[in-house]
Amino acid sequence: MSKIRVVVWGEYVHEQKSEAIRKVYPDGMHNCIAKSLAKNDSFAVSTATLQEPEHGLAQARLEETDVLIWWGHVAHNQVEDRIVDRVQKRVLEGMGLIVLHSGHYSKIFKRLMGTTCSLIWREAGEKERVWLCHPGHPIAQGIDTYFEIPAEEMYGEPFGIPSPDETVFISWFQGGEVFRSGCCWKRGNGKIFYFRPGHESYPTYFQPEVQTVIRNAVRWAAPEGSPWIDSIPNVRVSPEGIRQE
Amino acid sequence: MSKIRVVVWGEYVHEQKSEAIRKVYPDGMHNCIAKSLAKNDSFAVSTATLQEPEHGLAQARLEETDVLIWWGHVAHNQVEDRIVDRVQKRVLEGMGLIVLHSGHYSKIFKRLMGTTCSLIWREAGEKERVWLCHPGHPIAQGIDTYFEIPAEEMYGEPFGIPSPDETVFISWFQGGEVFRSGCCWKRGNGKIFYFRPGHESYPTYFQPEVQTVIRNAVRWAAPEGSPWIDSIPNVRVSPEGIRQE
Amino acid sequence: MSKIRVVVWGEYVHEQKSEAIRKVYPDGMHNCIAKSLAKNDSFAVSTATLQEPEHGLAQARLEETDVLIWWGHVAHNQVEDRIVDRVQKRVLEGMGLIVLHSGHYSKIFKRLMGTTCSLIWREAGEKERVWLCHPGHPIAQGIDTYFEIPAEEMYGEPFGIPSPDETVFISWFQGGEVFRSGCCWKRGNGKIFYFRPGHESYPTYFQPEVQTVIRNAVRWAAPEGSPWIDSIPNVRVSPEGIRQE
Amino acid sequence: MSKIRVVVWGEYVHEQKSEAIRKVYPDGMHNCIAKSLAKNDSFAVSTATLQEPEHGLAQARLEETDVLIWWGHVAHNQVEDRIVDRVQKRVLEGMGLIVLHSGHYSKIFKRLMGTTCSLIWREAGEKERVWLCHPGHPIAQGIDTYFEIPAEEMYGEPFGIPSPDETVFISWFQGGEVFRSGCCWKRGNGKIFYFRPGHESYPTYFQPEVQTVIRNAVRWAAPEGSPWIDSIPNVRVSPEGIRQE
Repeated sequence: MSKIRVVVWGEYVHEQKSEAIRKVYPDGMHNCIAKSLAKNDSFAVSTATLQEPEHGLAQARLEETDVLIWWGHVAHNQVEDRIVDRVQKRVLEGMGLIVLHSGHYSKIFKRLMGTTCSLIWREAGEKERVWLCHPGHPIAQGIDTYFEIPAEEMYGEPFGIPSPDETVFISWFQGGEVFRSGCCWKRGNGKIFYFRPGHESYPTYFQPEVQTVIRNAVRWAAPEGSPWIDSIPNVRVSPEGIRQE
Repeated sequence: MSKIRVVVWGEYVHEQKSEAIRKVYPDGMHNCIAKSLAKNDSFAVSTATLQEPEHGLAQARLEETDVLIWWGHVAHNQVEDRIVDRVQKRVLEGMGLIVLHSGHYSKIFKRLMGTTCSLIWREAGEKERVWLCHPGHPIAQGIDTYFEIPAEEMYGEPFGIPSPDETVFISWFQGGEVFRSGCCWKRGNGKIFYFRPGHESYPTYFQPEVQTVIRNAVRWAAPEGSPWIDSIPNVRVSPEGIRQE
Repeated sequence: MSKIRVVVWGEYVHEQKSEAIRKVYPDGMHNCIAKSLAKNDSFAVSTATLQEPEHGLAQARLEETDVLIWWGHVAHNQVEDRIVDRVQKRVLEGMGLIVLHSGHYSKIFKRLMGTTCSLIWREAGEKERVWLCHPGHPIAQGIDTYFEIPAEEMYGEPFGIPSPDETVFISWFQGGEVFRSGCCWKRGNGKIFYFRPGHESYPTYFQPEVQTVIRNAVRWAAPEGSPWIDSIPNVRVSPEGIRQE
Repeated sequence: MSKIRVVVWGEYVHEQKSEAIRKVYPDGMHNCIAKSLAKNDSFAVSTATLQEPEHGLAQARLEETDVLIWWGHVAHNQVEDRIVDRVQKRVLEGMGLIVLHSGHYSKIFKRLMGTTCSLIWREAGEKERVWLCHPGHPIAQGIDTYFEIPAEEMYGEPFGIPSPDETVFISWFQGGEVFRSGCCWKRGNGKIFYFRPGHESYPTYFQPEVQTVIRNAVRWAAPEGSPWIDSIPNVRVSPEGIRQE
């Protein structure tokens, strides 16, 4: 079986601008995530960042990507629309997409959801307890009932998303909020997973349970069927070819 | 516009057996809920209990019921299967069904869901904070972001239900759990709403926010279309009648 | 009860450019639909067209619109993005949206769906039989099993949409195709209904069953809850205000 | 990778009672399906029938079954409820279930759906054209736009099912009807696929496209996660164990 080709896309702004963040993620968040995934023999992992030409997402590269992981925050607006178009097309064709944390407000996630994707938030380094709503789900393999992140940014409901196909995780926050932290959708041929944890100022992506969930999500989101994208514009059907009455 | 005909069904066992529970609900939980609903001029409210003939749910009565509210707990197994059949048929035909608290394990709810409907629980009189996931939803009118219940039984995920069409409320519990407390489904023509709060030992159904949600849910669940139930067995279509090629 | 405020939006290009189309719809398709709806006392109906300033959809007007009906075809690209933004925001806030026929490819529909919305098609004036999949549904009131349109453009699967919340109608075409012709979604607070029939060269919107479906859909799509739109950017929650542990 | 263990369950009544049906399926329909699947090295295929002890579905056997295929028709009521309970439990635990044709009215399918599962039908040996709604879907691999079955029983809408998670196929019938012929749901951990074709009097299960769909569906329905079934009754959570505030 061929390897699942994963690209971890990082905005890579916080880590370059702030010494505090660089202390948490010296190589950038994308590299932290990529290194953790690369331990898995069945994945072929690489990274891409906002600063690269075409944000590292040239057409040819996307065509060879099975699953794209997306972390963005302060620079959502710097992502070019033509790249967003391209990523959307690839998702509808079958590429898996995993959107992390503040990526809820990325162009690509809002484009695919069609809704506001907004939420409430607070930065207070509080405890997050991530509950499993769907035991036995492929994304939850190795997770036992719940896991805790000692200090995280809080995200709270209401989360402005279309009803998920499956809600895999819901978070409990020390300060009194709840949030649908792990949500699945299918759009076209592509599987989409939103996963909440991962504020830049906490070492969340070093935590084993978080790495486990992302690894499981890559496997879940990898294309199952054959690539397919309907042509644009619509297909005109010749009556001769089809009509048989 | 004619009134919405609501029947509040109560198992009515705890209140008769336990003096402690009777102190909380001297007239039974069903009467507490019914009285609160009856304040609304657009509802015609009555009650039914397990102990009545046919559990108070004779065919003729169900045919004149727009929305049925269900509270049961220790006596789920005493509900006769033929009555469950009848209620299911009416829901599929268009009657709204509101299932409260421990009704998650009732025969009728499990019948309509097809799943285990199980959950985790703890009785410790802890604080519940019920968050609104879907502001502006008809069931949430008058609820502002969240409301709190000072002491309740805890219900926690995983909740063994099919993915809800809409998740209106998620609860946060003081002890560290979360729960999808307000969930909507449609089955056949019938709208179904599960609402978590209401353990028998706490005066939850006297709380204004809880009464507001149940009142809203009655309006939401009331039949919109025309009654319809497919006959059993299947309909055989005459080729003469239909075929027109 | 106050009236449901309906705006029928018409691209109004075919009718002005082609004499053949003008013969079918002398006052434009939007006026044909509006007149049919206006027979209903509980609706306050008006029209808007592409050619008007802001396409007839000024902010103030949208704020006073409960349900927007959309017919467009050859001029989708002439609809300004800022107007699409505005309509999308109002739908998420609670305004109903009914998208007709070739509106499947409008900016607003693609924006809300997040998918290609493409399909196959053929213009051969063939018979369409529209089957009811969901008897008793509010949108199907007055429709008996199925209805026929003597001559229509064919639209066929695959239809590139997210799984509908409810599939109310599926069409059978004489030439051998099928299509999900009546589909419901909810996005934010807004209800969305796509309805297939209505090619400009056929008098489809004069047909009573088609008028019945659109009238039902207006009632179904009218806002039920309170207007609500999450602010942009996200809401930051003060720890003092919320945190209570 | 270990093989997917498939059990093809056949009611096996028509084939024993009617010489006409026996001419079509001399070894029974279940053996026809099983032989076709057994050509695939990655499947371990066996059969079970109504007439065997426990209908061939002993607890130990079900525990070693990954995907169960179900064909039943005239003897739905002879299937014992305790066996239906057992199959339902295994599906919720993660076993895939493929329900064929008249199995729409089986106890197990109605149990998992919670609805009537009824439809309209006609036996007139007419042409069925099965359209693909979801190109690229794993269940549709190898199917090109549509395929035809020269003579089949007609099944028509309305089909009394909960909204499918995905509608993979819709059929067009020569006589003028349509039907959602390929539908996916998830219940608990189990994937469920309903596939319409296969009336006993036609050699449908010998047709390559039909065999392809069933083979694809087996792969799709095979368990992805870990087996999991919530205990009955609910789990009581000890406050000492969980509460950490």
